Amino acid sequence: MSQSVHVRPFRDLLDSGGVVEDPERIATYTMDQRQLFTGSTFAVLKPATTQQVADIVRLAAHYGIGIVPQGGNTSYCGGATPDASGRQVIVSLERMDRIREIDPVSMSISVDAGAILKNVQDAAAAAGLLLPLSLGAEASCRIGGNIGTNAGGLSVVRYGMTRDLLLGIEAVLADGTVVSDMRKLRKNNTGYDVKQCFVGSEGTLGIVTGAVLRLAPLPTRRATAWLKLAKDAPIAELLTLIHRESAYLLTTFEFMTSRSITLATEAITDPPSLGAGPGGAVLVEFASSSRHLDLDELMEAVLAEAIETGCVDDALLAQSGSQRTAMWRLRETIPEGEKRRNGSVKHDISVPLSSIQRFLDLAGSQVRSYDADLELSVYGHVGDGNLHYNVLVPRDVDRLEFTKRIESSLSLQLYDTAAALGGTFSAEHGVGRFKKHLLARYSDPGRIAAMRRIKTAFDPADIMNAGAIVCPMGGKSAS
Amino acid sequence: MSQSVHVRPFRDLLDSGGVVEDPERIATYTMDQRQLFTGSTFAVLKPATTQQVADIVRLAAHYGIGIVPQGGNTSYCGGATPDASGRQVIVSLERMDRIREIDPVSMSISVDAGAILKNVQDAAAAAGLLLPLSLGAEASCRIGGNIGTNAGGLSVVRYGMTRDLLLGIEAVLADGTVVSDMRKLRKNNTGYDVKQCFVGSEGTLGIVTGAVLRLAPLPTRRATAWLKLAKDAPIAELLTLIHRESAYLLTTFEFMTSRSITLATEAITDPPSLGAGPGGAVLVEFASSSRHLDLDELMEAVLAEAIETGCVDDALLAQSGSQRTAMWRLRETIPEGEKRRNGSVKHDISVPLSSIQRFLDLAGSQVRSYDADLELSVYGHVGDGNLHYNVLVPRDVDRLEFTKRIESSLSLQLYDTAAALGGTFSAEHGVGRFKKHLLARYSDPGRIAAMRRIKTAFDPADIMNAGAIVCPMGGKSAS
Repeated sequence: MSQSVHVRPFRDLLDSGGVVEDPERIATYTMDQRQLFTGSTFAVLKPATTQQVADIVRLAAHYGIGIVPQGGNTSYCGGATPDASGRQVIVSLERMDRIREIDPVSMSISVDAGAILKNVQDAAAAAGLLLPLSLGAEASCRIGGNIGTNAGGLSVVRYGMTRDLLLGIEAVLADGTVVSDMRKLRKNNTGYDVKQCFVGSEGTLGIVTGAVLRLAPLPTRRATAWLKLAKDAPIAELLTLIHRESAYLLTTFEFMTSRSITLATEAITDPPSLGAGPGGAVLVEFASSSRHLDLDELMEAVLAEAIETGCVDDALLAQSGSQRTAMWRLRETIPEGEKRRNGSVKHDISVPLSSIQRFLDLAGSQVRSYDADLELSVYGHVGDGNLHYNVLVPRDVDRLEFTKRIESSLSLQLYDTAAALGGTFSAEHGVGRFKKHLLARYSDPGRIAAMRRIKTAFDPADIMNAGAIVCPMGGKSAS
Repeated sequence: MSQSVHVRPFRDLLDSGGVVEDPERIATYTMDQRQLFTGSTFAVLKPATTQQVADIVRLAAHYGIGIVPQGGNTSYCGGATPDASGRQVIVSLERMDRIREIDPVSMSISVDAGAILKNVQDAAAAAGLLLPLSLGAEASCRIGGNIGTNAGGLSVVRYGMTRDLLLGIEAVLADGTVVSDMRKLRKNNTGYDVKQCFVGSEGTLGIVTGAVLRLAPLPTRRATAWLKLAKDAPIAELLTLIHRESAYLLTTFEFMTSRSITLATEAITDPPSLGAGPGGAVLVEFASSSRHLDLDELMEAVLAEAIETGCVDDALLAQSGSQRTAMWRLRETIPEGEKRRNGSVKHDISVPLSSIQRFLDLAGSQVRSYDADLELSVYGHVGDGNLHYNVLVPRDVDRLEFTKRIESSLSLQLYDTAAALGGTFSAEHGVGRFKKHLLARYSDPGRIAAMRRIKTAFDPADIMNAGAIVCPMGGKSAS
């Protein structure tokens, strides 16, 4: 079947704005976010309604054409990139970006899956509420992608992951069936919670077209502090103390090593003079929607306790909005700092909180044994046991080649260490195409068997994002 | 096949304590919690290990014997009761009740699925931590059942349902495959989160044998208040205010009507003199693990605001542990009060928070039109939009007959009203055998189709708790 035969039936379904065939425009959809791989497609389809999504899926199934659903194309794991065959069509949700409804009393927001995260945050804030999902890609990633990867980010310690925020869903299955359950209920125990299957499924079970998300009261007060850690400070114990003594007001506990801070500092024109202690630094934030709590007073009391334990050498409490912004800017510029250097090989590790220190020790030894000249940028959402354990690409080497080499050698050692500590090779970035071999390597066989059953149940012909995560039973590869 | 042929192979698998065949002892397992239905079985099997569970399942599959998994047998919906055929065997997890591990730094607890909820709470508390799952049946219900029904209860507004607490799982699938994923990770985005399928599945997809649950810091301070509501007080708006101004310290928001309070009062020998206002009453609790927050001061400030709005006629702040206990006792004795009267027909309604008042108005009219003499006991976890909207069985009528009559007439009217408001017929009690027809009546067909796909994927031969929730595709009935 030639490409024109592929695309013709879709043209009949969609208006002219709904089919992209120009190779230059297509190119922005076929390269993955980290520019590690470029796939191929004959067209990008942009449905405007759920009905059009269902029609596309039915047509694709009829012709045996694979579908790669795409939101903001910000996957770190090649989760939204077609393969090289050119036989998969991209279905971009970008035209389905409406805010459907905000219900301030129920504290919920209903949106199209193509809505950009930042726009949903803004719509919630305009109604005096908070969408408590915040991550680096928020200005371009879309809600459907957040659901597909169970996105985490910067306030999971308080509000949870995307899964914890999802109240309702609308999705199109691989046979065109529409699941429509856009209720905004906190509780609805009526059999299997079908929407859970889509969370973290990276477009392999169907296409999410709409979602209801829970909101929280908008914090009106924040207290933000920068903690310089003492040598060998036990991070998890510090977290335990701050978690307990802040009650439930802790929203952020972000760890950074000195090297990561330096990288960020170098990438900022007018950087704040915030450094790390020998054990690194932690950005801590409390937030509250109450007018009756003095958060600065609470933070001061908690910091005094933390300093008393000897874990913290020095603590700075932001005295103004601009000091707070400066602290956050430093934390959020780390990925950009890595990029300016020559990029990094990313390891999105998570271990039980009690094993963080042990992981840092063991992994550090592994890196030194592998190549004593390698430099690390280690930071992350330690409040959730999540470390971005990144190996910096040396300035003078080819980024792609270096990445391939590390990922086939040192990375596996690091993942082995995480696994031995009961951890995982992907805390919040997902599996996609890049980490499929890791899923096979590290997952319990019973769990993989169950995953393949789920895939088979929803998409036996492997139409939906084939190549990502797992293939159906009877499919071509073992995982 | 005679019953002895049924039971013989299981006897070979298990020690003598593992097979119950005595009809009198069996009888306590075959009657449902609400004593509405008695099923039949030829034996109760009590495996002591996960391996024995897997062996039982394989044997049952081989002989085509259906399995009904059972924890504490406290389902309100007949979720753990075999049918009348006598061909289903009960697999009780009661001998698998170990606490496997507590990790205070990771704030997690690993347990056998047969562990009694109260025992897990106690083990956590002994380590200075809180298992934030608390419900009426806690002294007898078991963790596997809590997972199977996604149990909610008294602190969902702060801590979420069982789903929100589940970090890891061990389960035996219908073909004997063991899924073993007992990691205690907050974040692990590596493909489909298989454990989510088991939450709310009521034993129809496999048998949960172990679980890792997340814990919270143990609250060291509590402030508890009893609010008497003004006439027509807008409950959801009051919740919004208290939720916002308590920041994240609100753990309980329990609504009660005057009738429910009276029933509880009559069932207590030395009842506290706590009544309702014209709009009912609300039990509010704040809890905190911090030594740096004065919760009484916060509660007083929040209550003053609430009174100012005119929603609240009067508010009593518990001044001692015994006052606090008295408030809780009144709330928790309501089900017992109903039972002593002559029981109730239960409706476990949930609606969006913004529709609570509207539901109460519409449902009240429906009840009055149906029979002006009927009395209601309405209370519930209104912080989650969950109302236990119970119709009291008149003293002089047969409870079973009355229940059947109401459930086939008035109940459907009430559920219709909930559904029209975007609500549900089962907030936290599940579906089981009793509410299967309601699932078919009220669920989106796409969602039902997806549920049947999931059932088919995990249990195509309908071995696991056949008769509850849905049957596989190609099965005997439509849902």
